[in-house]
Amino acid sequence: MITQEELYGAVEAGGTKFVCALGRASGDILDEVRIDTRDPDSTLTQVIQFFQAAEARRGAAKAFGVGAFGPLELRRNSPSYGFITNTPKPGWANTDLLGTLGRAFARPLGFDTDVNGAALAEWRWGAGRDLDSLVYVTVGTGVGAGVIHHGRPVHGLMHPEIGHVRVHRHPRDDGFPGVCPFHGDCLEGLSSGPAIIARIGRPLSDADADDPIWDIEADYLGQLCAQLVLMHSPQRIFMGGGVMHQERLFGGIRTCMLDWLQGYLPHPELQAAGFIAPPALGGAAGIKGALALGLGSLSE
Amino acid sequence: MITQEELYGAVEAGGTKFVCALGRASGDILDEVRIDTRDPDSTLTQVIQFFQAAEARRGAAKAFGVGAFGPLELRRNSPSYGFITNTPKPGWANTDLLGTLGRAFARPLGFDTDVNGAALAEWRWGAGRDLDSLVYVTVGTGVGAGVIHHGRPVHGLMHPEIGHVRVHRHPRDDGFPGVCPFHGDCLEGLSSGPAIIARIGRPLSDADADDPIWDIEADYLGQLCAQLVLMHSPQRIFMGGGVMHQERLFGGIRTCMLDWLQGYLPHPELQAAGFIAPPALGGAAGIKGALALGLGSLSE
Repeated sequence: MITQEELYGAVEAGGTKFVCALGRASGDILDEVRIDTRDPDSTLTQVIQFFQAAEARRGAAKAFGVGAFGPLELRRNSPSYGFITNTPKPGWANTDLLGTLGRAFARPLGFDTDVNGAALAEWRWGAGRDLDSLVYVTVGTGVGAGVIHHGRPVHGLMHPEIGHVRVHRHPRDDGFPGVCPFHGDCLEGLSSGPAIIARIGRPLSDADADDPIWDIEADYLGQLCAQLVLMHSPQRIFMGGGVMHQERLFGGIRTCMLDWLQGYLPHPELQAAGFIAPPALGGAAGIKGALALGLGSLSE
Repeated sequence: MITQEELYGAVEAGGTKFVCALGRASGDILDEVRIDTRDPDSTLTQVIQFFQAAEARRGAAKAFGVGAFGPLELRRNSPSYGFITNTPKPGWANTDLLGTLGRAFARPLGFDTDVNGAALAEWRWGAGRDLDSLVYVTVGTGVGAGVIHHGRPVHGLMHPEIGHVRVHRHPRDDGFPGVCPFHGDCLEGLSSGPAIIARIGRPLSDADADDPIWDIEADYLGQLCAQLVLMHSPQRIFMGGGVMHQERLFGGIRTCMLDWLQGYLPHPELQAAGFIAPPALGGAAGIKGALALGLGSLSE
């Protein structure tokens, strides 16, 4: 039984910062702190100290949730369940994130990717409240997505890694090799924030209104949405992250998605402006995602 | 409470034949009949008559399951829930399949795509018994897939339609326009049974051992598997259907999948021969899928 007043701990574990907060089942965030991501030992020590102080002030949390950068081991029967696995981030490969926090907190602990957490928060408190299935895409330094089916985040062998799907080249984007260290010109290699900067020398927010980069970006993200529709059939797609702050992208992405589907799925919902939309929780999606994972840990 | 002795009705509604059966919760099929798919009225009349006679002999079924060719309306809050929607099959567009059968049977009725049913059967009785997530792909006249997450079939706005994802051209497959009436050279347009016949004038089973079609086919299906891994992260992928009877395809598909992933996901499970495997239920996957949907209707 979850009541609105109970406290939950939330950890948004990012590659550049950890955001920690106490919050409530209503989604309200109380005390919050931002900690620079340094080595695992000193970073996690600061995380634990924050919660010790916050709980001394506010009272004990009923459960904790952690939404983390990956890749993660999410299979509960694995000896490295709860580890950050083969990340290129120095010092963080094979870090027992969940074990370290679990030993300190000694409470139920929900754990998933940051994007699965954000998707769950959008489902629980945001624009996806009445849906069974949705996708939350983030386009920034990387391209990632969290997927909800049956009201729960999707994972299996590991977790979706949609940033690395292949797309077809835009005719005006010939010759750019892409920036993905693994694949060069996969989706992330062509459409992430660094890929935009590599082409035009500045972020999309500073691009000229008639720069072809707008059409190129909308085409690649439209291809992603078409693939998501064919692969997952979500009821809606939410798109956030730094690149998606440029709201004029949304219309172009929808048009390109429909062009790539070529009339195959004549659902009026696909044509609606709201099918691909910004997340309602905005910048709070990450920390609220961790909070949602904490709440979810009680019903597992 | 489901007991092994109880009877269930199963309808595998296909574009060329309807298979109907009474079966048990154990997955055993008892009486079975095949009915040619003609117009909806006369076909469904025969289906209903079969079950009336079978139940008179065996006893009443506790629930029914229908796995159908699509596209289907699967959203329960839609006025056309249970309809076959915009199929090109003459006479079958906008057919109230579930309503017609539901009125005749007056018992709980599970309903889903044929491939989601087959995936569910594989999860319940087949090679996916110990898994939470799997994909069942069929490659034959068309290319389709059922997806299981959290032990349940995936749908949202509609259902996955993976046959129409885009793939990259194999260098030895230049110039072939593909056979998909919507997209030409989408996955189904390039890799279905008819696409193979359009190129080499005969089915894959009759292709010469050194025909380049083997490499081309494995490449396209390997691209599909790479996309499935990145989009769904299933624990395993099962591949059936007429084209997949050529077992030498499996090794090539796995190699091509790994080539397309280019080392991005270094999971030993992905390299294992069993990650992409034939379904354990073989030709019975369709009718057992319908049976599984009937069982599933009692826990919804």
